[in-house]
Amino acid sequence: MSLALLALALIGPAHAHGATREYWIAAVNMPWDVAPNGGDPVMGTTIPPAQRQFTAVIYRRYTSGFRRPWPNTAVSGDNDGMPGPTIRAEVGDTVVMHFRNRDHHYGLRHSMHFHAFRYLPSSDGAFIPFRSGRGGDVPVGGSRIYRLKAVADSYGVWPYHDHSSTMGQSIELGLFGAIVIPRPGEPRPDREFVVYLNNQKGFDTINGRAFIGNTPTFRARTGETVQWDVLALGENFHVFHVHGHRWLRDGTPTDSELLGPSSTLKVRWREGAPGVWYWHCHVESHQDNGMIGLYRVTR
Amino acid sequence: MSLALLALALIGPAHAHGATREYWIAAVNMPWDVAPNGGDPVMGTTIPPAQRQFTAVIYRRYTSGFRRPWPNTAVSGDNDGMPGPTIRAEVGDTVVMHFRNRDHHYGLRHSMHFHAFRYLPSSDGAFIPFRSGRGGDVPVGGSRIYRLKAVADSYGVWPYHDHSSTMGQSIELGLFGAIVIPRPGEPRPDREFVVYLNNQKGFDTINGRAFIGNTPTFRARTGETVQWDVLALGENFHVFHVHGHRWLRDGTPTDSELLGPSSTLKVRWREGAPGVWYWHCHVESHQDNGMIGLYRVTR
Amino acid sequence: MSLALLALALIGPAHAHGATREYWIAAVNMPWDVAPNGGDPVMGTTIPPAQRQFTAVIYRRYTSGFRRPWPNTAVSGDNDGMPGPTIRAEVGDTVVMHFRNRDHHYGLRHSMHFHAFRYLPSSDGAFIPFRSGRGGDVPVGGSRIYRLKAVADSYGVWPYHDHSSTMGQSIELGLFGAIVIPRPGEPRPDREFVVYLNNQKGFDTINGRAFIGNTPTFRARTGETVQWDVLALGENFHVFHVHGHRWLRDGTPTDSELLGPSSTLKVRWREGAPGVWYWHCHVESHQDNGMIGLYRVTR
Repeated sequence: MSLALLALALIGPAHAHGATREYWIAAVNMPWDVAPNGGDPVMGTTIPPAQRQFTAVIYRRYTSGFRRPWPNTAVSGDNDGMPGPTIRAEVGDTVVMHFRNRDHHYGLRHSMHFHAFRYLPSSDGAFIPFRSGRGGDVPVGGSRIYRLKAVADSYGVWPYHDHSSTMGQSIELGLFGAIVIPRPGEPRPDREFVVYLNNQKGFDTINGRAFIGNTPTFRARTGETVQWDVLALGENFHVFHVHGHRWLRDGTPTDSELLGPSSTLKVRWREGAPGVWYWHCHVESHQDNGMIGLYRVTR
Repeated sequence: MSLALLALALIGPAHAHGATREYWIAAVNMPWDVAPNGGDPVMGTTIPPAQRQFTAVIYRRYTSGFRRPWPNTAVSGDNDGMPGPTIRAEVGDTVVMHFRNRDHHYGLRHSMHFHAFRYLPSSDGAFIPFRSGRGGDVPVGGSRIYRLKAVADSYGVWPYHDHSSTMGQSIELGLFGAIVIPRPGEPRPDREFVVYLNNQKGFDTINGRAFIGNTPTFRARTGETVQWDVLALGENFHVFHVHGHRWLRDGTPTDSELLGPSSTLKVRWREGAPGVWYWHCHVESHQDNGMIGLYRVTR
Repeated sequence: MSLALLALALIGPAHAHGATREYWIAAVNMPWDVAPNGGDPVMGTTIPPAQRQFTAVIYRRYTSGFRRPWPNTAVSGDNDGMPGPTIRAEVGDTVVMHFRNRDHHYGLRHSMHFHAFRYLPSSDGAFIPFRSGRGGDVPVGGSRIYRLKAVADSYGVWPYHDHSSTMGQSIELGLFGAIVIPRPGEPRPDREFVVYLNNQKGFDTINGRAFIGNTPTFRARTGETVQWDVLALGENFHVFHVHGHRWLRDGTPTDSELLGPSSTLKVRWREGAPGVWYWHCHVESHQDNGMIGLYRVTR
């Protein structure tokens, strides 16, 4: 198997002309409602506010120098809470990430840890005892710069998340996001959907929300190329399933793929099935406990 | 990666001369015993009847117009309970599924939801609130026709199952089956084994049964091509393992593959290992709780 | 798909000149400490000795005729406890395994069951009722010879383990090891790390140990080819993740791959990232409960 050789080829000299992208992202508090519509319309149940509302800690993107919040967009994962802003780069790019911890509500230490990129241990964002001090733990009011490089094998869909000493609690509170790096030469999809599976506050959540109407309703038109960026964090394993559609994995058609914490799926197809479709985790208790959404395809 | 192009090629015009296959399937009650031999011969334990017997709801195939039950065959998954009748089609075929709900024992609503096929949302078999009424819920005495098309990326092994508002309960009671669509041009195997992993009545079941002697004992001869159609539904993740055999997955030999609810495996080899062999889920508690069977190979 | 043909090609005549390798391995007792450093340095917690120490049962390799223990080496998995000695062979080789059960502490029956190899049912090492007697159960003081053949599709990383009637208990007590068979023509890696994920004594263990400093700290230099042989047994599913590195799976970069009991990963890269890095299971509770280690790369 030429795996080693292929790896060598991939790790070869990166693009000479990569751009440098600066991000300014802070961990901030915001009120969060797992089910703002008040319940589960499939089973017709309502959930009391106290059970579905809490103070979240999310990654929020700011303009240069943390002057003001980056404008929200309608695109899931762009700056509206959970997941945090999607970090985009091209192979060859350098990303300079300015991070601030503004979690005044909980007063917890936080950090950013990035998959996908090549970086020095000082930008790892995780605490290693006897070695690095608590550098992966940024206290409230503190800041840190992470320097990241998108190299030849960085393309794909990857998570970033808190990896401080509060990691488990912080990922449940909302400190997670997606990194998307296109394969060189790959055409951009017409639509891109970020789907982040997690377990939060006793619910099985998608992008921090539970039950249809609360979870995203994605939209596309026939003829468009759609891409699903599916990620998972937390405790559980999941099966990503979309009704009425199939895609190829290593040349074999499928409509149901496994994920576990930090594993991801990049799913693409050319849309040709108009209608309203479910997509959900196929673990029955997860689906019943919120991990389900809608997809509306029009002609 | 040419995934998008390959997908396009696959979704191209289907076979011009596909057949239309009509199926008549009802959800019916039948008495079921998870362990008709009375226990687990590996550990020498017996299980009281009350713990292993219940009234199941299964998919039963009928002749045209639901006139009489389709003859049972010796082949697992053909019409003997769990899984329901295996739905077979070729790429290009149309399947017209006539469904009736005859679950008079529980009086539950039921449906059929199909993976594999292309279909309109009206044939999805799942209830979507605010949109479809309760069309995915067929009441007792009711009926429904699902129209399905085996398209270019429909080949493989896929599940079908209840997706009504009672989905979780109904899949445990027995409403699940397999769809098998050969890859165009692929030779038929000499033997085909349907293996359906589930959790039912507190047991880890294969085809609705637990412990060897109750679960299927499959048979083959050396020189034959055998195909294992392995499917899972329910709550759990599993590892399908066969003793004394290996197969290739994407060019790499394996004997242990992960499954989760609604994911499937198609495993093929040319038989060359005479003897009696175990096959089982390699999760220890699942194996101990019933998810194990025998495979007898003779010369 | 040419799977069947490829399988046929693989099962063709094996190497004419395979060697015969004899192993002498006994199940023996030894005192074991899951966390010999006394606790978890990441969270700064200590664990009382009674909670982390027990009498293990491990596979220990001996010289011919069980005359004396095979010399330990510095390499993980070579003869120092858990996992048992790594069994190495080339495609075409015959392995004759002499096994003795010397578990005088617990007095349990034990066996060896091998993935990877072709063998007759009499060398399967698992008890099958009504058929084999309790041949898969070797009583204390008893012995057994297993005859194994590395055939064309035997290459890869595979587990071996107790498959007697005490399998669940015995795997937790330590009776597991790795089989490594290189793909014909594949160059040897410069470094090879055996990583065995399990659940033992309430901890999520790597090679029988929990928490960094207790779990292995692997070492490599930039420019070296490193191979991670990752295996899992027990009850749980895991996600193997390494910080600061990526590898290819079927042509797609990844840094997080799923495993379940008896599934394995062979991960290779050419090292180019100096520093101290975490590697761990990305299931949060597993990581917090011990399933994490260090990797030191120097120039």
